[in-house]
Amino acid sequence: MTVRVGVIGAGWIGKEHIRRLTDTITGARVTAVTDIDAARAAEAAPVGARVLPDGASVVAADDVDAVLVTSWGPTHAEHVLNAIAAGKPVFCEKPLATTAEDCLKIIEAEQAHGRRLVQVGFMRRYDAGYRQMKQVIESGRIGEPLIVHCAHRNPTVPESYTSAMAALDTAVHEVDVLRWLLDDEIVSTQVVTPRATGKRFEHLRDPQIMLFETAKGVRIDLEVFVNCQYGYDIQCEAVGEEGLVRLPDPAAVGVRSAGQHSTEVLTDWVGRFADAFDTEFREWIAAVDAGNEPTGPSAWDGYAATVITSATVEALESGRVIATDLKPRPTFYGGIA
Amino acid sequence: MTVRVGVIGAGWIGKEHIRRLTDTITGARVTAVTDIDAARAAEAAPVGARVLPDGASVVAADDVDAVLVTSWGPTHAEHVLNAIAAGKPVFCEKPLATTAEDCLKIIEAEQAHGRRLVQVGFMRRYDAGYRQMKQVIESGRIGEPLIVHCAHRNPTVPESYTSAMAALDTAVHEVDVLRWLLDDEIVSTQVVTPRATGKRFEHLRDPQIMLFETAKGVRIDLEVFVNCQYGYDIQCEAVGEEGLVRLPDPAAVGVRSAGQHSTEVLTDWVGRFADAFDTEFREWIAAVDAGNEPTGPSAWDGYAATVITSATVEALESGRVIATDLKPRPTFYGGIA
Amino acid sequence: MTVRVGVIGAGWIGKEHIRRLTDTITGARVTAVTDIDAARAAEAAPVGARVLPDGASVVAADDVDAVLVTSWGPTHAEHVLNAIAAGKPVFCEKPLATTAEDCLKIIEAEQAHGRRLVQVGFMRRYDAGYRQMKQVIESGRIGEPLIVHCAHRNPTVPESYTSAMAALDTAVHEVDVLRWLLDDEIVSTQVVTPRATGKRFEHLRDPQIMLFETAKGVRIDLEVFVNCQYGYDIQCEAVGEEGLVRLPDPAAVGVRSAGQHSTEVLTDWVGRFADAFDTEFREWIAAVDAGNEPTGPSAWDGYAATVITSATVEALESGRVIATDLKPRPTFYGGIA
Amino acid sequence: MTVRVGVIGAGWIGKEHIRRLTDTITGARVTAVTDIDAARAAEAAPVGARVLPDGASVVAADDVDAVLVTSWGPTHAEHVLNAIAAGKPVFCEKPLATTAEDCLKIIEAEQAHGRRLVQVGFMRRYDAGYRQMKQVIESGRIGEPLIVHCAHRNPTVPESYTSAMAALDTAVHEVDVLRWLLDDEIVSTQVVTPRATGKRFEHLRDPQIMLFETAKGVRIDLEVFVNCQYGYDIQCEAVGEEGLVRLPDPAAVGVRSAGQHSTEVLTDWVGRFADAFDTEFREWIAAVDAGNEPTGPSAWDGYAATVITSATVEALESGRVIATDLKPRPTFYGGIA
Repeated sequence: MTVRVGVIGAGWIGKEHIRRLTDTITGARVTAVTDIDAARAAEAAPVGARVLPDGASVVAADDVDAVLVTSWGPTHAEHVLNAIAAGKPVFCEKPLATTAEDCLKIIEAEQAHGRRLVQVGFMRRYDAGYRQMKQVIESGRIGEPLIVHCAHRNPTVPESYTSAMAALDTAVHEVDVLRWLLDDEIVSTQVVTPRATGKRFEHLRDPQIMLFETAKGVRIDLEVFVNCQYGYDIQCEAVGEEGLVRLPDPAAVGVRSAGQHSTEVLTDWVGRFADAFDTEFREWIAAVDAGNEPTGPSAWDGYAATVITSATVEALESGRVIATDLKPRPTFYGGIA
Repeated sequence: MTVRVGVIGAGWIGKEHIRRLTDTITGARVTAVTDIDAARAAEAAPVGARVLPDGASVVAADDVDAVLVTSWGPTHAEHVLNAIAAGKPVFCEKPLATTAEDCLKIIEAEQAHGRRLVQVGFMRRYDAGYRQMKQVIESGRIGEPLIVHCAHRNPTVPESYTSAMAALDTAVHEVDVLRWLLDDEIVSTQVVTPRATGKRFEHLRDPQIMLFETAKGVRIDLEVFVNCQYGYDIQCEAVGEEGLVRLPDPAAVGVRSAGQHSTEVLTDWVGRFADAFDTEFREWIAAVDAGNEPTGPSAWDGYAATVITSATVEALESGRVIATDLKPRPTFYGGIA
Repeated sequence: MTVRVGVIGAGWIGKEHIRRLTDTITGARVTAVTDIDAARAAEAAPVGARVLPDGASVVAADDVDAVLVTSWGPTHAEHVLNAIAAGKPVFCEKPLATTAEDCLKIIEAEQAHGRRLVQVGFMRRYDAGYRQMKQVIESGRIGEPLIVHCAHRNPTVPESYTSAMAALDTAVHEVDVLRWLLDDEIVSTQVVTPRATGKRFEHLRDPQIMLFETAKGVRIDLEVFVNCQYGYDIQCEAVGEEGLVRLPDPAAVGVRSAGQHSTEVLTDWVGRFADAFDTEFREWIAAVDAGNEPTGPSAWDGYAATVITSATVEALESGRVIATDLKPRPTFYGGIA
Repeated sequence: MTVRVGVIGAGWIGKEHIRRLTDTITGARVTAVTDIDAARAAEAAPVGARVLPDGASVVAADDVDAVLVTSWGPTHAEHVLNAIAAGKPVFCEKPLATTAEDCLKIIEAEQAHGRRLVQVGFMRRYDAGYRQMKQVIESGRIGEPLIVHCAHRNPTVPESYTSAMAALDTAVHEVDVLRWLLDDEIVSTQVVTPRATGKRFEHLRDPQIMLFETAKGVRIDLEVFVNCQYGYDIQCEAVGEEGLVRLPDPAAVGVRSAGQHSTEVLTDWVGRFADAFDTEFREWIAAVDAGNEPTGPSAWDGYAATVITSATVEALESGRVIATDLKPRPTFYGGIA
């Protein structure tokens, strides 16, 4: 059966996912699209899809089996809550909501509904390299994890990028994937700021080093450097009691010429995680089609990411170690009763 | 529009491609399946597809826009010729035909038809690493190619595998991808046989080293070792006048433990070229859907592969250097008038 | 001319250096040896060398041109001060002295003497990989350094190893080599403690993550993990405004077998820095022979290392960020007037 | 005791070894030097060494314990025979002699003398990477060797370099090291010539691919490319029944900048094997000093190298497979009685 998807938000990522559901992934069809800019929605809608006036009408539409939320972050909560109220599966791009309060409302609504409907768009869990890392960690081959070293580097960001976005928009991917890799929770956060690069805007604290501590005592250092110039480069190394495992660089041909052995470093994050996005949607559509609960990042993961990244902004601004003070995890989301 | 595909041959590779067209690739639907074993065809046919008695009825079927030939090699020519006669696009798994004569019949039929209908299933041209290699070579960064070093290693093969299959079934992939990488033709072939591995069957000459020469004077050495035990490992390095380029190993996590830094070597060729197969079919379906000639390996490429690999078997058996003596390439297939 | 060296302290490292000066390096000869254990001195003394009763007599001996101090750390200052008083070049294994006060006495004595006599045994500055890193940094190719990520891992340590030794004996090498690599000073230090490995002694905080800040604002994170089990592994990556440079792993053959590509990780620190030790002594002996001031780590570097590592122990014990509060660097040691 | 070395030939390699024996290696002293150009000998002679009129007087000199032959190749045999006649250890740079006949005379003379005096200067056996390869092969970890792939690439050669020198001067190093790595003999040789690079002189066949077969049936392909432009690059990979082992590239820092991850490729062969040369002389001097027979490449190895490389020149010129037809190996040189 073909899953009929309604899309709320036709900006860059919305269009990208519409293309993915239409041309790359089997089993789904976009039947309705909305955007605050109706012309943009019309442009993004594939052949045979309707343009609807707002998110509520997308959620309500008879020919919409599942909802994809790719609108502006502050509107996410409303659309997700609508979808839960309608009992429809909903895939929400990160963030689930921009405040912990809104995330908690979603969590309550979903629990009241009684089964999982919400999946949050953290695609790294679907990257082949991270999945291999998780297999190695779970195999016990490196022993209990103790430390994780990470780096998240972008070549440049536009002037509109703020120091807080280093946590909220960039590090949020590591926050989610590390919680999942380690099967652990982040309990405190701290930010250390090296001298700022002189290559970009004066207003920006870039790079930043974020220091997380988990419930089990794992320490994570994460370099976020969004104007590193040289490329888009994601590094992750987990050190355990008996060994370590490291995320691979993307495969690339080696060239020897002019006294150098070189391989290309990607400069584009879309290329880096294109396969992960495809797998993410393939698995989500398969779960929806089968009538199963989604297996990807849950509303609880969305809540945790929002709380932890918000605490990291507070840590940056205050210079202090900030406890994340997450609520106890409900059994509904895998917490211990 | 959805391309309706009829499949002739429901063995392992046929089933794999049916799955690919049904579940992985958008834009296509398998509508008819046949096999010499009707039960196998029935088992392989996806929901909504008909089981037909033979290849001719698949080619003739009204609900078949394009034909996929995945039957036993000696039957390929007949089905391809039928498809050409019917004016339908046809994707034929390698080999195009098992004799040069049959390949030439197909070439003549296709030229008589007046436009390309045939694509041969050499998937390596769709592998991201080989495509990067080709870009580097064409960029001029390594200068004119002079030498290519290759290895094609499988962990093991079954007892039914013969010494001739090292060329016909295994090296055939390198023969095609090297002709394409170098935009050049193989004019002679020689086989050198190291002592045989003691790890497999006495009847088998394994490993073999094949030595090819191209029209432009490039020399290629290709190790074919189908019982190398340790893994499935494809190596390719092109050396030019000013530098070299090397195919990457598949990306894999690095693990440090017990005094070793290790990465996994694949043991499975399907995993190695899964993405290439997907891209191959995605591009073929897109071309068919657009009413364009296929852009992949042509009937001429299929002819060349059959001639060159047959000559390589002769070289193995005779111990001599064998000229491939290919016919002049028709302008229809990009030859110079 | 052959430099005649007197050795104070014939423990493991003393014997190692005696062997180096006798068998590996040209231009030097050990003429006198002392140790608190006279039998050990006699055993260590090469043919033709005298065993003397104490450090003072080694320093005073007519046939000693230069002094090598490899005794117990708390005795270093006395011997170095004696050598300065005698106007003889002195190579002192780290630490220069175990207290900042003693280091300062040496610095004052050396300045009063008027030219440099003291070199401290930080061998990493002589490692080919670190030297390449320094060249790359100084070439400007990565821009201004902003962050350095380091790891110092040992397979195991004996039960006598204490948590403080992670800074004083282990991290001290990174402290020196980073000050030199960056041509910068460490102004504050902090220690973050992950959960301790369960593989060794309960009393030990292992691993530790040390966080240093330099005068120019570079941030350094250094993982010290002395019971990592898998090997002796030194990592260092400097991230600058436009790129990064990373210390290579030691060259080792790659092996493919049983589904793995592997290279060996060293398990022995002596092997890792054997060439660096040789180069260190070769350059020191050459400078002494030429009557030049030594070009290696100075008494000031020894002072800085003692202060910074002591502050790091305080940081570990207090959980606070500790300012290193180094004295202003005298112009004698390259400080700005 | 210090070994007193007399040097015959003060060209580039002679001076290099004089420097090595004087400044780098302990245990030896150059006491006499000769050269057909007396001024060059005088310039090369270290302080305290005499300049003698000819090789015979060097061999005869009372203060010469061991002889180093670094003169022009065609004169080697005479000097080596003189040294044997005088019963003095002699280290002869490759080739041992330029003809098989002269090599055989040396072999006969040495056997008549009754113990080994001759070592030939094939330094690769002392390279750490090749030594690791040999350990892996001998450990049985890759099973019985079946194939070796090699490449020997130089950035450029001068116009005086001839096509025959590719075997005689360049491939000779692989010939020796492969015989030693495999503990096997080369029984036939063939040369395949790709199109020549357009980057150098018209007279030169460059690159060449040499194909060797060993007594045990191992097949070796060796690319010799002496104008590859990009660097000095030595590759060697041995494939066995169960795995493979590959020579490492020299360790070098990795740099990421401007969309590339790069490591430097050496451009200088002296740098590539500097440590190997040091180890070669250190072990030779130690053996001489101890009064032991040398453990390095023997006169027999020198004979084999001359025969095999001469046969390879014949193979190049004739286009045929040439049998090396080595004499049976005497038991004196490890042959089986």
